[in-house]
Amino acid sequence: MPIVQIDMIEGRTEEQKRSLARNITDAVVESVSCKPEVVKVIIRELKKEHYAEGGVLYKDR
Amino acid sequence: MPIVQIDMIEGRTEEQKRSLARNITDAVVESVSCKPEVVKVIIRELKKEHYAEGGVLYKDR
Amino acid sequence: MPIVQIDMIEGRTEEQKRSLARNITDAVVESVSCKPEVVKVIIRELKKEHYAEGGVLYKDR
Amino acid sequence: MPIVQIDMIEGRTEEQKRSLARNITDAVVESVSCKPEVVKVIIRELKKEHYAEGGVLYKDR
Amino acid sequence: MPIVQIDMIEGRTEEQKRSLARNITDAVVESVSCKPEVVKVIIRELKKEHYAEGGVLYKDR
Amino acid sequence: MPIVQIDMIEGRTEEQKRSLARNITDAVVESVSCKPEVVKVIIRELKKEHYAEGGVLYKDR
Repeated sequence: MPIVQIDMIEGRTEEQKRSLARNITDAVVESVSCKPEVVKVIIRELKKEHYAEGGVLYKDR
Repeated sequence: MPIVQIDMIEGRTEEQKRSLARNITDAVVESVSCKPEVVKVIIRELKKEHYAEGGVLYKDR
Repeated sequence: MPIVQIDMIEGRTEEQKRSLARNITDAVVESVSCKPEVVKVIIRELKKEHYAEGGVLYKDR
Repeated sequence: MPIVQIDMIEGRTEEQKRSLARNITDAVVESVSCKPEVVKVIIRELKKEHYAEGGVLYKDR
Repeated sequence: MPIVQIDMIEGRTEEQKRSLARNITDAVVESVSCKPEVVKVIIRELKKEHYAEGGVLYKDR
Repeated sequence: MPIVQIDMIEGRTEEQKRSLARNITDAVVESVSCKPEVVKVIIRELKKEHYAEGGVLYKDR
């Protein structure tokens, strides 16, 4: 704890995910003064047909 | 905001997902009087071996 | 199943939540042809200090 | 209700998931005295590049 | 990891939550052969006006 | 999108939440090259009796 869950559209590289996990962890540690090792980060990738804004699938934009 | 997350068993067509996103957005707009473009919809598809009711996997029903 | 989770800023009336649950259920039934009784709806209310867009808390907008 | 969501690293067998659903349901029934059939269990499998502890992807450990 | 999130209607005693956390952890350990200390359990309590089945709020049942 | 959900034990100050939202948004923007305004951050505070590690409630540690 803290546990961070990130939903984002699929397609990022493994390196982007690596830096996302590191940067998010640093951001949490800096903001709430906890140790890095207690921060858990979950990345959930979404297909473009599984996310919509304004009622329109991302795939149809 | 609002952000809507829907968990459902995999197997629906893309057209069903399209109408799900549109209909859910309309339902939220009608109920809480917000603008359509602020409504986000996330669809999460589950394999039948990843959902259980009464302790029994959907796959085994 | 399907299970719908809605995150929204606190402050809506009970009647708005009642119609949100009903309208969301109807939207799901219409879109994916399931029975109403299998649709579960969870409403999560968020304080304005617990939601941010563009790095700015809703409370500070 | 109750609805249980479990995030875990991918790789478990179908039999492990079967017993996870059964054991979790029994645990909930025993703890909060509800009927088994009202307990829903969702299993979410994560790739090793989608989970991090201490800022390090599970894949890089 | 594994991380377990449980949504349930508010009203259970602290002792029921204590046993829920213990029993859920035991169930996960037994099913997927992990160590107890890696299992995280999050309990989310819902007001009866924040959960619906079949389009009807739990509060109105 | 991306949408970030953070679960943490209650008790942080409003200023800590303000900086958490800002720092998390910066971290996402830097890692996956998206615009700040598309990043949504949800903070969920947990009571100590609603989080457990190793089967023990945080309240009992």
